[in-house]
Amino acid sequence: MAMDASEETLRRAMSDKQAAVDAQGNTVRDLKASGAAKADIDAAVEALNALKLEKSSIEKQLQATITGGSDVGTLSRDAFRQAVGNTLERRLFYIPSFKIYRGVAGLYDYGPPGCAVKANVLAFWRQHFVLEENMLEVDCPCVTPEVVLKASGHVEKFTDLMVKDEKTGTCYRADHLLKDFCKEKLEKDLNMDAEKAAELKQILAILDDLSAEELGAKIKKYGIVAPDTKNPLSDPYPFNLMFQTSIGPSGLIPGYMRPETAQGIFVNFKDLYYFNGNKLPFAAAQIGQAFRNEISPRQGLLRVREFTLAEIEHFVDPEDKSHPKFGDIAHLEFLMFPRTEQTSGQSAKRMCLGDAVYEGIVNNQTLGYFIGRVYLFLTQLGIDKERLRFRQHLANEMAHYAADCWDAEIECSYGWIECVGIADRSAYDLRAHSEKSGVPLVAHEKFSEPKEVEKVVIAPVKKELGLAFKGNQKNVVEALEVMDEKEAMEMKSILESKGEVEFHVCTLGKVVTIKKSMVTISKEKKKEHQRTFTPSVIEPSFGIGRIIYCLFEHSFYTRPSKAGDEQLNVFRFPSLVAPIKCTVFPLVQNQQYEEVAKQISLSLTAAGISHKIDITGTSIGKRYARTDELGVPLAITVDSTSSVTIRERDSKDQIRVSVEAVASVVKEVTDGSSTWTDVSWRFPAHSHVSIDE
Amino acid sequence: MAMDASEETLRRAMSDKQAAVDAQGNTVRDLKASGAAKADIDAAVEALNALKLEKSSIEKQLQATITGGSDVGTLSRDAFRQAVGNTLERRLFYIPSFKIYRGVAGLYDYGPPGCAVKANVLAFWRQHFVLEENMLEVDCPCVTPEVVLKASGHVEKFTDLMVKDEKTGTCYRADHLLKDFCKEKLEKDLNMDAEKAAELKQILAILDDLSAEELGAKIKKYGIVAPDTKNPLSDPYPFNLMFQTSIGPSGLIPGYMRPETAQGIFVNFKDLYYFNGNKLPFAAAQIGQAFRNEISPRQGLLRVREFTLAEIEHFVDPEDKSHPKFGDIAHLEFLMFPRTEQTSGQSAKRMCLGDAVYEGIVNNQTLGYFIGRVYLFLTQLGIDKERLRFRQHLANEMAHYAADCWDAEIECSYGWIECVGIADRSAYDLRAHSEKSGVPLVAHEKFSEPKEVEKVVIAPVKKELGLAFKGNQKNVVEALEVMDEKEAMEMKSILESKGEVEFHVCTLGKVVTIKKSMVTISKEKKKEHQRTFTPSVIEPSFGIGRIIYCLFEHSFYTRPSKAGDEQLNVFRFPSLVAPIKCTVFPLVQNQQYEEVAKQISLSLTAAGISHKIDITGTSIGKRYARTDELGVPLAITVDSTSSVTIRERDSKDQIRVSVEAVASVVKEVTDGSSTWTDVSWRFPAHSHVSIDE
Repeated sequence: MAMDASEETLRRAMSDKQAAVDAQGNTVRDLKASGAAKADIDAAVEALNALKLEKSSIEKQLQATITGGSDVGTLSRDAFRQAVGNTLERRLFYIPSFKIYRGVAGLYDYGPPGCAVKANVLAFWRQHFVLEENMLEVDCPCVTPEVVLKASGHVEKFTDLMVKDEKTGTCYRADHLLKDFCKEKLEKDLNMDAEKAAELKQILAILDDLSAEELGAKIKKYGIVAPDTKNPLSDPYPFNLMFQTSIGPSGLIPGYMRPETAQGIFVNFKDLYYFNGNKLPFAAAQIGQAFRNEISPRQGLLRVREFTLAEIEHFVDPEDKSHPKFGDIAHLEFLMFPRTEQTSGQSAKRMCLGDAVYEGIVNNQTLGYFIGRVYLFLTQLGIDKERLRFRQHLANEMAHYAADCWDAEIECSYGWIECVGIADRSAYDLRAHSEKSGVPLVAHEKFSEPKEVEKVVIAPVKKELGLAFKGNQKNVVEALEVMDEKEAMEMKSILESKGEVEFHVCTLGKVVTIKKSMVTISKEKKKEHQRTFTPSVIEPSFGIGRIIYCLFEHSFYTRPSKAGDEQLNVFRFPSLVAPIKCTVFPLVQNQQYEEVAKQISLSLTAAGISHKIDITGTSIGKRYARTDELGVPLAITVDSTSSVTIRERDSKDQIRVSVEAVASVVKEVTDGSSTWTDVSWRFPAHSHVSIDE
Repeated sequence: MAMDASEETLRRAMSDKQAAVDAQGNTVRDLKASGAAKADIDAAVEALNALKLEKSSIEKQLQATITGGSDVGTLSRDAFRQAVGNTLERRLFYIPSFKIYRGVAGLYDYGPPGCAVKANVLAFWRQHFVLEENMLEVDCPCVTPEVVLKASGHVEKFTDLMVKDEKTGTCYRADHLLKDFCKEKLEKDLNMDAEKAAELKQILAILDDLSAEELGAKIKKYGIVAPDTKNPLSDPYPFNLMFQTSIGPSGLIPGYMRPETAQGIFVNFKDLYYFNGNKLPFAAAQIGQAFRNEISPRQGLLRVREFTLAEIEHFVDPEDKSHPKFGDIAHLEFLMFPRTEQTSGQSAKRMCLGDAVYEGIVNNQTLGYFIGRVYLFLTQLGIDKERLRFRQHLANEMAHYAADCWDAEIECSYGWIECVGIADRSAYDLRAHSEKSGVPLVAHEKFSEPKEVEKVVIAPVKKELGLAFKGNQKNVVEALEVMDEKEAMEMKSILESKGEVEFHVCTLGKVVTIKKSMVTISKEKKKEHQRTFTPSVIEPSFGIGRIIYCLFEHSFYTRPSKAGDEQLNVFRFPSLVAPIKCTVFPLVQNQQYEEVAKQISLSLTAAGISHKIDITGTSIGKRYARTDELGVPLAITVDSTSSVTIRERDSKDQIRVSVEAVASVVKEVTDGSSTWTDVSWRFPAHSHVSIDE
């Protein structure tokens, strides 16, 4: 059962109504702020309450629709989440890790069906991105020496501000506490004065920019206490989110478990560029584990301490970010949420990707191309396109060096969740590693004919440098030679005025004194045969676990059992992600049927279709329910030795097919070359009215 | 070019000659030991030297054969290793990790072709083991809390003894230094007296059993110093090989990066058994990263600090270790090296697996079944079956609880390398976690009719225990209840004689005093409806990186270029593991040929064949050489618009095929449904004598 029309309509209505509620809320506050007449304010508040009532009614209808028409009008987001979670845990899609030892927050195992879904998602990712685009896939270790993560900035900046319960020592994220406080106030206290409301909204807007001192001051000001105990809180202080360790027996090489897979690609840029024939653009990709020692994991499978990332680093000439295949995806239309819509309080809107790039809303074609490819990837997996949007980062969310950044956000019971980040990070990462390692990570563009340019020429006087720095001479020479034009001209002017200059040599980790006699710096006209530049990198980064969790929620529904006495759970996974493609059930336990089942199993194996035989003696109805809970698209029931039935999970329709033909029919449907509707025309329907189900 | 007959013969001869050298070496020592006449000893030494000369001559012929008949008679193991290593590193099969920062010992990246080979090996592993045997695959985190690894014994025992250079602080493995010393003495000092030789051989035999004190004493006795500096060494002390970290912000939850994936399966036994319908036997499997903080990594890709393991835990009733599919593999014959052959100085011998199990050399059918399946897995990947043997662990190598253990060892330039361990670990792991967690990890066998048995009944007196232990009462009660028969009867007799007893409660981590009034213990006759037992586990554990490295060595050969002026490198990968299956070369750069190449590329994609178009203008010979170095089995050259040539990598034979047929021919050959010989009969050969190559 694909999402039906009424569900789609209700979702649209919900989203519209939410926007209306938000807008009316603003009107009420504005009226108060402008000192409007009490009667006007009261009327506006009344209108607001009416809108809220309407929204709540739509919400109830929607919940009822999602849950298959059952009478659970009061099923809240929490109850829905609980229902999905129970099914997932009972059928071992996932298991809290180390459960027999009472587990560890933020760590989960994938059990057999979850593991199969994950393997399918990753195989499709490889197919859709790596193979389709000829990307260079690499596989780097998780253990990473400190120097790499110092260069990337993680050692210094990959922190969250933390506060401790002063009595129990329990740790909390300071920004979460302040955010929760502001949101609750704004939602519940409608009679708050306008000034206060504006203040709280302002805090929410700048939350990510607040320093430890500012956060601490606000926590004090509002009297925020530990949520569990109401005890006072410590001042906020930074906590680095990387798991730290030590490499080798000496204890002298600090290391971390990587917080992302990207750095492994950046440090290999030089070799990968060579491998690609010294040509741009090209992309490298990596799938692997990443680690974040979250202060207090919440949101179940969405915020975990170890997770699988799939990352792409697409290296491109900063002067040409066009993409040859942009035309393939320019026609796509989907929900986008540009910066201006966010800051002006509007909602996400359906846009054509080609227009968004043409109008400059998306910074460049390559970034746009990946947004389109990510859209196709997620919707083909089974993510509901009405609950998927691409949200542009606000200016204060983005790193200073980033050119543009869009998150693929998926709506689930926890709200809109960032599942893929697609960022144009300009030349930041390669520059950072060039500087720290002293190895230039650059690309070249050969000119068809030489160009005359004015260039700074830096000529270190090796004899003088050798006398002054002995064994360190080489490092100093190299550091002088890699100065950019601005640095070199500054040095030249200081040397001319003062005769010497302090100079920081990265690779030595110290400052040395350079005298005028040690280097000559001049500007010369030169013929250049090529341009040397640091490539920009466009990085789509996929949180595989988050995507899978959202997929679970979007695929889940319940429907009443035949007797109507219980709700049955179904995952409407597309064949692509279903943990197995079909099950084989001998109707009753007898040798003949089991032989036929084995024969079918062999032909399914030969056709490369993952499947399982279930020869337990339980009723066929129970076996169907079990297979529906695992999201298996097709079930074959052996009820004769010549022909069998194939049942489709969501329609529950059955067709009768000869034993010889069954594998090829299942293959057609599960590999997508035919739809279920196509094949059900070709074969006789099996009566629904049977004692079986 | 598959391994030709002469190479196979030479390898056999080498192996025989090595055995003869070893045997004659023993004879010489025995003669000396027995005080034989000098003339006899001299004759024996002369025979030994003659054997060594013969061996060295065979070795040279073999090297020449491996390297394609080139005149490199002096190519030693080291030179061969260097040649493979250079090719692997130049073509980015692997890259020392964090190379621009001068790397970290024991950490390597897989570059694009290495990554593809690894993905192919893992996909085949899943196909061959998980799907074929319906195993339950799980995926658990690497970060593991201490309690789990305390239960498994890793916190206490996963250590190597380490010595430090007293001046530089450089660390070494103590056993490695002693082993190197003994081996070198035994090899180089043939005139050593018999007593001394016996002593050194004895040390090698018991090396793994030596305590820190014993190792230290021997290092002192032989005056072993730091190999790099000749400085004195510290006393040996244990170094735990796990990477340690801390979970969460409090710093109070110690954790480790898992040293193996198996524990994640054991702790989930209860859920997995339920998932399998509470039936034995069943197997669970896991592929993932594991971590060992090696003291001083050596042997390149073979001993690394982070690696991919693929592990199977097959749970079975200890009273019935038969396997229903044993018959499928019982006929297999290959090199086995049982315990008795090792201790009596014989070599590995070709045995029939069915006989080995029948004669009790291999402990049971299930263990034998996995040995056979591992043999098929490795040889289908391309491991040379003449350089693969299954070696049984000696009694002193095995853990006390293990029933039997066999390593699949592959010979490469570093010697015989353990790549897969296949162990019957009995009930050890499940028992250890049952005890530590208090959660019974057991299975049940329902009796067809109840049996009468005499059973110990333990009845804790909760009131007395509550008074004595208050909040800890539950832990004490549970600990009393899980005592086995022997423990309970011992407690009974002490309580009867002394009135009280000291009792260790695991879950409290302390000893408490139990008085006679607190528990009654008696023997009663009972009717039992089921047997409850801890399953045995049979564990095949695959070091994926080691297998891949050995595969690289076994697949590598060189052959002279057409002009004879250089050696070209080739990897003879089977299609199954080749990083891509074919390349497409337009013979010259023109639009017509490039159009045809694109058309072929589309049909290859449709047939699901990974491939690459190479439109660089370099000569076709150079492009063939490049593709051979990556081990690509087939190359398509577009030299007309109607038909093209397909060239096979090892024979260099070419056939001419129409543009329409090319994809299906490539598919036939690469998916193994036809051999190259089959298809080359069906199509006209393309003349070898061309200007192209």
